[in-house]
Amino acid sequence: MSLLHEPHHDGSPLYLEHEAPTLGWTVKVRVRTAASDPVDQVWLRTTYDAEPVYHACGPVERDEHTVWWEGELPVHNPVAHYRFLISTGAGTPEEDQRWLTAAGVHRHDVPDTFDFRVSTYAPAPDWGRDGVVYQVFPDRFARSAAADERPTPDWAVPADWDDEVVFEGSDPRTPTQFFGGDLDGVVEHLDHLEQVGVSVVYTTPVFPGESNHRYNASTFDGVDPLLGGDAAYARLSAAVHERGWRLLGDLTTNHTGDTHEWFRGAASDPASPTRGWYYFNHDGSYECWMGHGTLPKLNLADPDLRAAMVEGPDSVVARWLRPPFDVDGWRIDVANMTGRLGAVDVNHDVARAVRRTAEAERPDPLVIGEHNHDASGDIDGDGWHGTMNYSGFSWPVWSWVRDPASPARPFGRPLPVPRRPGPLVLRSFREWLARFGWRAASQSWNILGSHDSARIRTVAGSGAVHRVAAGLQFTLPGVPMLFAGDEIGLEGVLGEDSRRPMPWDRREDWDHATLATYAALAAARRDHDALRRGGLRWAHVDDDAFVFVREHPSGSVLVCARRAGGPAVDLDAGLLGFADGSPLLATEGEATALVESGGTVTVPAAEGPGLWLWRV
Amino acid sequence: MSLLHEPHHDGSPLYLEHEAPTLGWTVKVRVRTAASDPVDQVWLRTTYDAEPVYHACGPVERDEHTVWWEGELPVHNPVAHYRFLISTGAGTPEEDQRWLTAAGVHRHDVPDTFDFRVSTYAPAPDWGRDGVVYQVFPDRFARSAAADERPTPDWAVPADWDDEVVFEGSDPRTPTQFFGGDLDGVVEHLDHLEQVGVSVVYTTPVFPGESNHRYNASTFDGVDPLLGGDAAYARLSAAVHERGWRLLGDLTTNHTGDTHEWFRGAASDPASPTRGWYYFNHDGSYECWMGHGTLPKLNLADPDLRAAMVEGPDSVVARWLRPPFDVDGWRIDVANMTGRLGAVDVNHDVARAVRRTAEAERPDPLVIGEHNHDASGDIDGDGWHGTMNYSGFSWPVWSWVRDPASPARPFGRPLPVPRRPGPLVLRSFREWLARFGWRAASQSWNILGSHDSARIRTVAGSGAVHRVAAGLQFTLPGVPMLFAGDEIGLEGVLGEDSRRPMPWDRREDWDHATLATYAALAAARRDHDALRRGGLRWAHVDDDAFVFVREHPSGSVLVCARRAGGPAVDLDAGLLGFADGSPLLATEGEATALVESGGTVTVPAAEGPGLWLWRV
Repeated sequence: MSLLHEPHHDGSPLYLEHEAPTLGWTVKVRVRTAASDPVDQVWLRTTYDAEPVYHACGPVERDEHTVWWEGELPVHNPVAHYRFLISTGAGTPEEDQRWLTAAGVHRHDVPDTFDFRVSTYAPAPDWGRDGVVYQVFPDRFARSAAADERPTPDWAVPADWDDEVVFEGSDPRTPTQFFGGDLDGVVEHLDHLEQVGVSVVYTTPVFPGESNHRYNASTFDGVDPLLGGDAAYARLSAAVHERGWRLLGDLTTNHTGDTHEWFRGAASDPASPTRGWYYFNHDGSYECWMGHGTLPKLNLADPDLRAAMVEGPDSVVARWLRPPFDVDGWRIDVANMTGRLGAVDVNHDVARAVRRTAEAERPDPLVIGEHNHDASGDIDGDGWHGTMNYSGFSWPVWSWVRDPASPARPFGRPLPVPRRPGPLVLRSFREWLARFGWRAASQSWNILGSHDSARIRTVAGSGAVHRVAAGLQFTLPGVPMLFAGDEIGLEGVLGEDSRRPMPWDRREDWDHATLATYAALAAARRDHDALRRGGLRWAHVDDDAFVFVREHPSGSVLVCARRAGGPAVDLDAGLLGFADGSPLLATEGEATALVESGGTVTVPAAEGPGLWLWRV
Repeated sequence: MSLLHEPHHDGSPLYLEHEAPTLGWTVKVRVRTAASDPVDQVWLRTTYDAEPVYHACGPVERDEHTVWWEGELPVHNPVAHYRFLISTGAGTPEEDQRWLTAAGVHRHDVPDTFDFRVSTYAPAPDWGRDGVVYQVFPDRFARSAAADERPTPDWAVPADWDDEVVFEGSDPRTPTQFFGGDLDGVVEHLDHLEQVGVSVVYTTPVFPGESNHRYNASTFDGVDPLLGGDAAYARLSAAVHERGWRLLGDLTTNHTGDTHEWFRGAASDPASPTRGWYYFNHDGSYECWMGHGTLPKLNLADPDLRAAMVEGPDSVVARWLRPPFDVDGWRIDVANMTGRLGAVDVNHDVARAVRRTAEAERPDPLVIGEHNHDASGDIDGDGWHGTMNYSGFSWPVWSWVRDPASPARPFGRPLPVPRRPGPLVLRSFREWLARFGWRAASQSWNILGSHDSARIRTVAGSGAVHRVAAGLQFTLPGVPMLFAGDEIGLEGVLGEDSRRPMPWDRREDWDHATLATYAALAAARRDHDALRRGGLRWAHVDDDAFVFVREHPSGSVLVCARRAGGPAVDLDAGLLGFADGSPLLATEGEATALVESGGTVTVPAAEGPGLWLWRV
């Protein structure tokens, strides 16, 4: 199905004059329509204090292929919503009107849910938008020699680095099996990250907690001695920054461990000053994360907790952003549930507080909220810059590349994701991108998995398809985040299984083709504005192939992703704006130049899966 | 296109155990699937503090046509969101998963925007849900003899009752042409309303204002003497209540007139106690509604204004709900913009305050907010009970019934609505119903027009199609609101033109077929729970016909609406649950009983437009 003839707008520089205008500005917005599309009028509709208001757009450029329409959008509200009304055949029996929203073109009158949005709030810092993020789960990444000297704590079941990971939820060793990776181990392998093209190191929690995952912090005042303590974290931070990279921490604003000093005080004494920081019931029971008694839920409506945790220079959020740790921002765990309990919902206040506090400490902090379903209401404003984009990226990609024999499933979902054809997956891509908004989606993390999910190689099977998924991770709008090991083809059927130790000493087991692919993709993303900041125009979709253009004033990139072999795809060169055709990258086989012939550019047929990039 | 085989759930009693559960309850939810649909599993997915959680549903009833699945929904948040995951062919090459949301069945992974919702907040009062609302624009409805005695004010341009209405926006007489209808005129014609089946009288503002529409109030402390003053309003209220009906006022919470006592004080003296009740700029200019200087915008962030206007027993909202006026609730003008200006948004606080204040005065008040686009964010909670449903009802219906030659257009929109085929209109019905939520949509007003829009007869042309639209108004979920004159076929190309005086003395000009249709529709709605409280299951759609069932435990009603003649429609009797077939109503021609033959029920062909009802 060819898509280039569709009217198009997105939040990228070719279509939107300012991505972060000041409140009260008027910004130019542009729509392209095919010259063959009999458009008589284009209207920009915005909502002004929730009242729909229309502004005429006029044609400002026209050639034999394309008409560009331009209108002026008054940015009257902090997040301004807009869409376009496209009229064709007015006064004829074929009279029609289409809406263009961020989810695409609609021939029926649609609610505002998929409207375009432009936000007056500051975007994420450049490093958070242009970088490549690498997630490290410290217990499983690497062990420095010093780790051998540390005694194993009582709660832990020691494991050798090459042991099988215990991952069944019913097995008590799942959270306690202890491999002993540490922060100096991370420092020792930064060259590997450099090879992959990483520029942001994100570690899951480094606070002490009586588990291998450390999401059950016993304090926020120091680094787990089992990881090397504060000094090791300072060394990691220095080493990361020395390379010009950035470091992200991981903070559980939703809960602490039941061994946390705040909770121990609260639980043992109803008069404790931290009693109100949790939700204790009259019978002494307390609210906790998803029923897990070891993870008592924090009451962020409490002003003292707010100050201790997220607000002001003495808060946990602030302190770690200062020397010696100099963390550049936070990934916030369970951001979706934070500050929400039944009729209470202070989530947005907390998100805003975290961001303001971080901004008071550093010039360019990043705050990413974990959210495993629809984060759209939480990320287009002055809170989280973006989210871990499971819903809008991981699950749609999984549903496209899934090997039907794979046992992997989206976490929390009771069924494996079904294998779906391209056109249905495209609808998901479009609707989720629309709901998040262009900028928040661009700032969110394109993840193929994490420490909480199956590994992409397990989802996609053992062929080359997981590299196609990797290609989408680097070429669709969003920031690629790799879970350490993705790049060498590690496997895992669910989150706990995916936390297998990095096999540093078994390089013969690495998937070297995948490693090379990641490095090439990261380089391409670094080298081409279009892949980082360009628009997204879909050119073609069929069951097994996506073809799209990332458009940017400095040059555009055409992407063809195939989950299986398929025939050549003809594209209208004029609508594409074809001007080059140099091959940039091929995950499989050789890349050959695209050429125009008789107004058509033909993306070559393929015998198997792969992803290819060309300058166009 | 047959639709009865689709999986179905809605917010009606057959599918949802409680429509207003208490927070913390668990309520049963049911889904029906066709027995021929190879469903293996149905999962209820809810969001618990914004975390998706799944609960298995099990089959609880099964016959050769239908399987009923049931699950338990924990109502953990004040408005609980949910949807269903329907798995078919698990373990086979045809494995598939569909989502069932309030917008229908989706084969791709969709955002939460169309999820079902159940609200723990109290629903609208029964009278507000089961009644028929009649909108009176006092200057144009009827003139009592007393009106002749009243001097015409300076601002007014007097008109005779049969004069043509001046309606061009550019003509200064549009707001000043004064026909002199009054409140005793309304009292004198209540028998007409009774004939139509009305049970709620809603008048546009009765406060004095220097215009024929009175949306520019000069005080909220009394009734315009030109309407008969306080005494006349008390007489109207008494007469309305004597019939067991209800009376609704109309309040502009967004603005006042520039002649309002609050504004005059504020404008003349920067130290005035009401200065902060408006938005004055440093240069003495002020914010106003859509740039109209005569309508200064109220600053509802000001606590003193909040108390004067919407909060507590001394507020405008409260006082009119007490004797002698005893108004039963409010239609809130420009509710969408109320409390919103640029970065300020206290809309929800105001909506909640209006509702609480009203509830403190009367046991069962109704609060309806005017909202001419997407009200979904504003109406599923503890604020407005519902809205004037232009977006989800008027515009879709208009786009289906529109005579292409009609100049009518949705107000505020720069183009006439195009004529659209049934399947596209169905998408709009479904998506808007989903966005509003079942209960808020059911409590909202199904309007075919108002004093702000063209008349339906002008939209649909001079045939019988406007009666089909009227049929939809009484048979789709929502409360029918007639703009006085709809029932006798008055015309108008836009709001001001639609405010033509009621031609009481020219009954020969009335559209008596339409009057009879409205009366019959109102009677049918009164007599059948299914039409007031039943579910909505779509049975068939084609370009020119909708067939749907309103399902209720006390008996279901089948509706066939045709905008043009068309062939017979065969329905699967088993999936329909066919058990009766008695005709209830026909807007055109004779109604004949439906019969089952060989498992099929055939809705007869029609030579022209019409709407038919049957018990099924």
